[in-house]
This record gives sequence, structure tokens and C-alpha cells, in this order.
Amino acid sequence: MDNLSCTMIIFGGTGDLTKRKLIPAIHQLEKGKYLPNKFKVIGVGRRDISQEEYNVMLYKGIKEYTNIETNQELWNKISKKIYYLKMDFTKSYEYEKIYEYLLEDNKKEEISSNLLFYLAVSPEYFGTIVNNLKKNNIIDENNHWNRMVIEKPFGKDFKSAKKLNKEITKVFKENQIFRIDHYLGKEMIQNITMLRFENSIFEPIWSNKYIENIQIIVSEKEGIGLRGEYYDNTGALKDMIQSHLLQILAITTMESPENFYIDSIRNSKAKLLEDLVLYTDDNNKEDIIFGQYEGYNDEEGVFEDSNRETYVAMKVFIDNERWKGVPIYLMTGKNLKEKLAQVSIEFKEPKNTIKTKKEINILKMDKKPKGNVLEIMIQPKEGIGLRINIKKPTVINEMEVAQMEYCKTCLNGLNTPDAYVKLLLDVIEGDSTRFTRWDELSYSWRFIDSINEEFIKTHKYKAKGLGPDKAYTMIKKDNRKWWFLDKWGKTNENI
Amino acid sequence: MDNLSCTMIIFGGTGDLTKRKLIPAIHQLEKGKYLPNKFKVIGVGRRDISQEEYNVMLYKGIKEYTNIETNQELWNKISKKIYYLKMDFTKSYEYEKIYEYLLEDNKKEEISSNLLFYLAVSPEYFGTIVNNLKKNNIIDENNHWNRMVIEKPFGKDFKSAKKLNKEITKVFKENQIFRIDHYLGKEMIQNITMLRFENSIFEPIWSNKYIENIQIIVSEKEGIGLRGEYYDNTGALKDMIQSHLLQILAITTMESPENFYIDSIRNSKAKLLEDLVLYTDDNNKEDIIFGQYEGYNDEEGVFEDSNRETYVAMKVFIDNERWKGVPIYLMTGKNLKEKLAQVSIEFKEPKNTIKTKKEINILKMDKKPKGNVLEIMIQPKEGIGLRINIKKPTVINEMEVAQMEYCKTCLNGLNTPDAYVKLLLDVIEGDSTRFTRWDELSYSWRFIDSINEEFIKTHKYKAKGLGPDKAYTMIKKDNRKWWFLDKWGKTNENI
Repeated sequence: MDNLSCTMIIFGGTGDLTKRKLIPAIHQLEKGKYLPNKFKVIGVGRRDISQEEYNVMLYKGIKEYTNIETNQELWNKISKKIYYLKMDFTKSYEYEKIYEYLLEDNKKEEISSNLLFYLAVSPEYFGTIVNNLKKNNIIDENNHWNRMVIEKPFGKDFKSAKKLNKEITKVFKENQIFRIDHYLGKEMIQNITMLRFENSIFEPIWSNKYIENIQIIVSEKEGIGLRGEYYDNTGALKDMIQSHLLQILAITTMESPENFYIDSIRNSKAKLLEDLVLYTDDNNKEDIIFGQYEGYNDEEGVFEDSNRETYVAMKVFIDNERWKGVPIYLMTGKNLKEKLAQVSIEFKEPKNTIKTKKEINILKMDKKPKGNVLEIMIQPKEGIGLRINIKKPTVINEMEVAQMEYCKTCLNGLNTPDAYVKLLLDVIEGDSTRFTRWDELSYSWRFIDSINEEFIKTHKYKAKGLGPDKAYTMIKKDNRKWWFLDKWGKTNENI
Repeated sequence: MDNLSCTMIIFGGTGDLTKRKLIPAIHQLEKGKYLPNKFKVIGVGRRDISQEEYNVMLYKGIKEYTNIETNQELWNKISKKIYYLKMDFTKSYEYEKIYEYLLEDNKKEEISSNLLFYLAVSPEYFGTIVNNLKKNNIIDENNHWNRMVIEKPFGKDFKSAKKLNKEITKVFKENQIFRIDHYLGKEMIQNITMLRFENSIFEPIWSNKYIENIQIIVSEKEGIGLRGEYYDNTGALKDMIQSHLLQILAITTMESPENFYIDSIRNSKAKLLEDLVLYTDDNNKEDIIFGQYEGYNDEEGVFEDSNRETYVAMKVFIDNERWKGVPIYLMTGKNLKEKLAQVSIEFKEPKNTIKTKKEINILKMDKKPKGNVLEIMIQPKEGIGLRINIKKPTVINEMEVAQMEYCKTCLNGLNTPDAYVKLLLDVIEGDSTRFTRWDELSYSWRFIDSINEEFIKTHKYKAKGLGPDKAYTMIKKDNRKWWFLDKWGKTNENI
């Protein structure tokens, strides 16, 4: 058995994630010939369906939920690798089914294949599953690897995350645990690292000496959909900020890693998250704006009088030499005008400028020259934009803002691979760079825990709107503007 | 009389420059309402033509040589301001005609209007003209300004330039002399200053710490045309490098001026030109390549056995803290594949890069990542390009080069104003920022004089080709490549 070949066991094999993301990802890996020589999937589910019904369900899923190109021939090749296993994973004795299957498949006295456990189920079952895997000798210390992938949420505060971590680390070691954050598999998020460290022009100006502020936006057009119960218990702060936005923040602002081995990058990220300035009850209340879209209380699974936030805008600081004094604005929300994810890095205005020449009457300079802005566009457009100040092509010396742009999706259509394709390959190859290590997670939770939600008022905002006015007041008070507004055809003046 | 209103006296009023550039520029200034309240033109010429014939000739010139939009109504308005004066400017007594005209026009006992002398004639007449202007009391120290514009070439070496300067400074003070270099009026050349000083992201990385090399290219598609006699006496080194290319070099690399008043910028430029490393017979012979296009010797006015260079490629260094060790490659030539003017700034490759992660087998990085390149496109495209390294949108970590671009002419068509429009307005407004001061000129000549042309072999190259092979050998030996080649659909490998 080579080091990549493995059997992937999906708990939640008939669930949404499996149909929408995992099987399509496996499909793409097969198509691109990225799968190892030997690769099998065991889809574990409680439903009483036949292997054929399972296959049909998965194939339908690909066609229904994705726009990837497929055909029956290709699918036949893939579906041969997929095995449906009906079992109740809450019952210990049921795990024998897995054990038996693997034994038979390995044609040996003991399990010898590498095992990739994918826990596509609610976190409340994580403990049960890992304990039962251990108890039933499916995980052992034989000459093969065991890896486990778990989806967020990983806890709902530091305490519960710690408890959960304790449970799973009884069975899996830290380097066997792959805490997936699918944002880290997105093309442009991966590109942030390349941008910073494969281009010599950015790193020298990547500090408070040149950067005025940073803005990280992940807005969604959809509401909470059918996830009312989960969402009403969680909210945007813990669902989005704690995971995706803090990870993007860490990648954007971390110190240059010593090298680019797995733990070196994660060391840098963890250090950054450790350096986040914690909130205190007095001094930072006005730096966090909560919002809730109108109609939220009518959603299924939501308390009638819930004031759970579906929107957060906040100002964050980092307490280190590089970033001291640079505000980082985070914004995320549901049911907003557009789906948009973007990092905007606004540079300071230059000090010695031609504007000082204004005494010569021929010079009619634009009264509002702007600092440069580097935009890392994550979705729906994927690319890079750079605003620079440039002379207007007129006789007099007017200035205008030019937008340089490189747009990946504009060139390649929607062909950038889905995050799960890359992340799944990472797991198979044992590269956990793009997965969250426990210390990163614990620092994120410590930061989130420093926010006292009781003290923060939740402001209503219009569905498919721009979010609460307060978010604009906050940034305007700082004499800044949200750069994403341009993408929405708005300016800070006209809202 | 206000400080802008003036009478412009063109010596060479029936010449090419007047028809192709000066009158069209005045046309555009009138159209854009940039002309002062009172503005007159006296076109001085030897030809015996009527005022009406002169008008018709100029109007035809606009339509024939330019693509600016005009109409009879607009032209009538302009032509009313233009007066044709038949005179022989080599004869002192003829200058009375100018004096008389001005007196009458001023309706006073003495000349009271501001006077702008434009010497659109061969430099050999500069001395005669200024002396006669003085002798005939056309230039006096009354309460109005006198300014003189002269076209290049200003001398053919330091000695002759000094002599010429001495002649004209007997009559005009340095601040009354506008040595025009029309390249400095080009939109993107003016933009270099704005780019550098109105954007905070460039200046911090504008030094030998981050920049690997700089390339300045001005290639022409045309041959020498009908200028054989002049050209065979002059050559590309003095016709192009000494003026346009060294000026572009100075603007690109000068220290940040103390402020942006006229002399502050020119101080910076002069200092830079002073710091150019002079050539010595031994050490720099291989850094200069001369070329001559095939068929040059058959051009009219050219000596049959002339080995005058129509092409120069050379490597220049600047001896100051900012630029020590950074080679600056200049290239200019006639009868080449394309008309192109461009500054390319190539940055060093980053040191700490993801490539060091190659030990992890999933990483298949492009083996040839490139330093970033900032391109300032002057013509025919006007704009800015930036090459950055970016992740390929594939499952594995391949890198590719992305070209970000902002193209002015692509957006605005060919509507950027001609250099002469802006430069003429500069003269009217007394802004000599974009004109060459004597010390700049003298340092340029000192630098050019340090080249011993006798020692440099002239290599033949194909008409409409890429220039002599030697130019590519030179840069290849330095492990670099000419960036402009991409624009010509070539790479350094395939030539």
C-alpha cells in the first residue's frame, strides 16, 4: 500500500455536504487523475437504501447542485469506488460493519489500508464516533495512517471547543486532525499567501508604516435558509467571524513564515491570532455593530423574539510591531444586496505630493486624491485590483483614480476548482497547511469570547439591503469608507 | 494686460513644425478655452504668400497631419488671431517689421504685450535671431515678459552647447528660455512623476534594495525620412539618447524633489544627470551597442560609407545611494519592428518564497517565477502594466504570471492631448518644469561626451527588424531580458 492510497469513510453519507461537496470533489479528482492508485469511499448512512439507489442519489446530486461536466461513463468509473454502508453510528456494535468491510477489503487478518474519516455530521456526535472507532479497533497504531476531517463549528466558545478537542484528542493526535474551513480552500485565499511572498513589491509595504486600514468583507445574499435552529443558536459572530474572517485576517496579516512547511505557516497564523487585541466591556463596545435582517424572526426554527445577529461589522486591532494602530474592519452578513468576499488593503496617502504645488495657478488638482487600494477579490469575481492615482489625460494637471485589474474568473470562466477538491486532496496527501490547528482555534475563541454580546444592540436592516446604517456611521466617524460599496454601485456618500 | 495674454512670434512660420504641431496645438487650446484673453500669433516666413494663402495652408495642415476635429467656424475664430509676416530673419533691418507690427497692435509708444518667441528654425540661426531681437528693441526690460522656446538639438556636444547657450543668454535669462523636449509633454511621461509621488506604494520600493534593473525603450518604425543630412551628422546617440531617453531616465530615477515648484523638480533631475557614471575607454566599451539599418547608406543626404548609428542599446549606471548597482538599459532605434516607448522597472525576486516548500511532493511550482515588472507604457498604448506572480487556478500549487493593466488610450481612444498642446500652455503660463534647464543639459552632454564613438563598432540590422543581435547578447550575458520584446510578440529565447 502506498502512502496516498486510502479508504475514505464518510459519516453523514446521505447528507447534504456529501451530495453537494464531497462526492463532486471526488468526481473532479478522478477526472483530473489526482486520486491515488487505490481509493475507496464508504458512505455511512442510516437510510435503508440499496447500493444502486445510493449511486443514483449521488449522481443526481452532482447534476443538481454543481455545474461540473460529467457523463455516465465517468460516473460508472467513480461509483465503482463508492460503497454504501447502512448503519447507526450512535450504536457501538454497529461499527463492526465497518471493521468487517475493511478486513474483507484488505484481504488480511487486520486492517492495513490508510483511513480517512470524514465527519459530515453534527459536532454533538464527534465524541461518540471517535470513541467507537477506537473501541472497535478500526483505528489502531498499525502501519497505516488515520486522518480525521471535521467540519465547523468546532465548539461554540473556548470552553466547549476545549471540551470537544479533549474528546477527539483522546483518540486522534493533533496531526491526524484536519479541521476544515472551506474558505481556506478558495482560490484567492490561497493566493493571498502567494501574492505576499512570491512578489517582492508587496511585503516591503505590508505594515503600519504604509497601510492605513484593512477591510475584510464576506457578505451573503441568501438568508439563513433551513438552518434556523442552528443559526439562532450561533449567529454571524461565531458562524462566520470566528472561522472564515479571522482565518482570512490571519493569512493577510501574519508575519512571514520561517519557511513554507506546514507548521511554519500555522505558527505564523497562530501568533497573529494570539496578538489580536481583546475587547473589554468599556472601551470597545462602539467598535462592534450587530444587525438582523427584517423578517428573520419569521424564519423557521428561529425564536419569535430572538435578537440573534445575522450581521456583524467590527473594528479589530493587532498588538504587534507591524500592525499597531492599523484598524482592521470586518463585515459579514446574510440577506444583503450582493454575495461578495473581498480583502481591501488601503494604503496611506503619500506625504510629499505634487499637490503642494497648488500655488501655481495652472494646477487644478483633484481635491480628493486617495490612498492606493489593493483589492483581493475572492468571490464572485476572483482576482486582484489596484487603485492608483494617475494624471487625467487632459491639458491641465488633474488627477484621477485608475483601477488596474486582473480577474481570474473573467479569464477562466467559473473553472476555478471548488475549495473541497483541493482540501480533500490536501488530506489525502497529509498537507494540513490549510486546516486550522488547535492553537489557532483556541486563540480565535479567546478573542471572540472577549466580546460581551449582552452589551451589543442589534439593529434591524432591510433584506437584500446594505446592512444597518450604524456600520456606515462607525467607519465614517473614522474618516474612512467601506471599499466594497463600489462593487455594489454605491458610495459612502449616497447611503 | 494680464499675465497670460501674449503675442507669440514663430520663426519658421511656414515650416513643418508650425503646420504639424504649433498651429494644431493652438487650435486645441482655443477649442478647450485654454488660451488667454488676448492671444496673437505672428508667423514669420520668407515665402511671398498672402494672409489668406497662409490661413489656407495652416488649415490644410491641421486636416492633413492631425486627426483633431475641426470646422470652418472654429478655424475662422482661430485664424483671426494669426498674422503672417513676410520677412528674412537673417537680416537685421527686417526686424523692424516685427517692431512696427507690435507697436501698432499695442497702440502705444512702446511694446507692452508679453512676447513668446518660438524658434522653429535650425539652431544655427538661434544666435542671429536673438541678437536681432535685442538690437531692434523688440526685447526690452519693460513691464511685460519675454520668453523664448527653442527646439532641440541644443548643440552637438558639451562644447557647442555651451557656445550656443552663451549666445542666447546674452539676450535671454535662463528663466526666460524654454528648451522644449516634446517627450516631456507626453501624457505618460508626465504621469511618471504622478505615479511616483501621488501613490504611496511605489516610492518605498523605488531603490536598489528592491529594483533589479530598469529598461527605457524608444523604438521607431520609420527610417530617417528626409532628414538624411541632419541625421548623418548626428546619429541616434545625440538625437535620441542625449535628449529624450536621458530625460525619461532622470524623471524615473530622480530623488523626491523637496517640493513641486518648478526648480525643485529640475534640481532633482539635474542632480541625477550629474550622478550618471561616465564611460571610460576601457571599462564600458562592451556596454554600448551601435546599429545601423540595412539600406541606410542609400538614404538621401547620407554618406555612402557612413557608419552613423541609427540604433543604440546601452547600459548605464547611476552613482548614488539609491541606485548603486542597478543597471539601466537604454534602447532606441529607427526602422525597427514597432513604434514603442516604454519604461520597464523590474523588481528583484523575493527571497523567502513558497518555492522552498518543494520538498512536499504536492507542490509543483513553476520553475521560472519572475520578479515583478512595472511597465509605464508611453506609446502607442498609454498606460500602466504590472506583472505579478499568482497561483494558477488549478488543484496543485502552480504559479503563473498575471498581467494587470490600466490602459489610458484603450479607454479614451486617441484623445490624449498632443505634447505640444500642454507644453505651449506651460510656456504661456510660465511653468518651465517640463523644459530642460541648462545644468541638466550640460550634465547630459558631459555624459554623452564620455562615450568615445570611435571605439564602438556599428552592427547592421534588418529594416523593420529587431535591431542587432549584439543588443540581445549583451542583456543575455547579464542574465536578463528585454521586456519590450513581449510587446513585439517575441521572447528572448526565440530571437
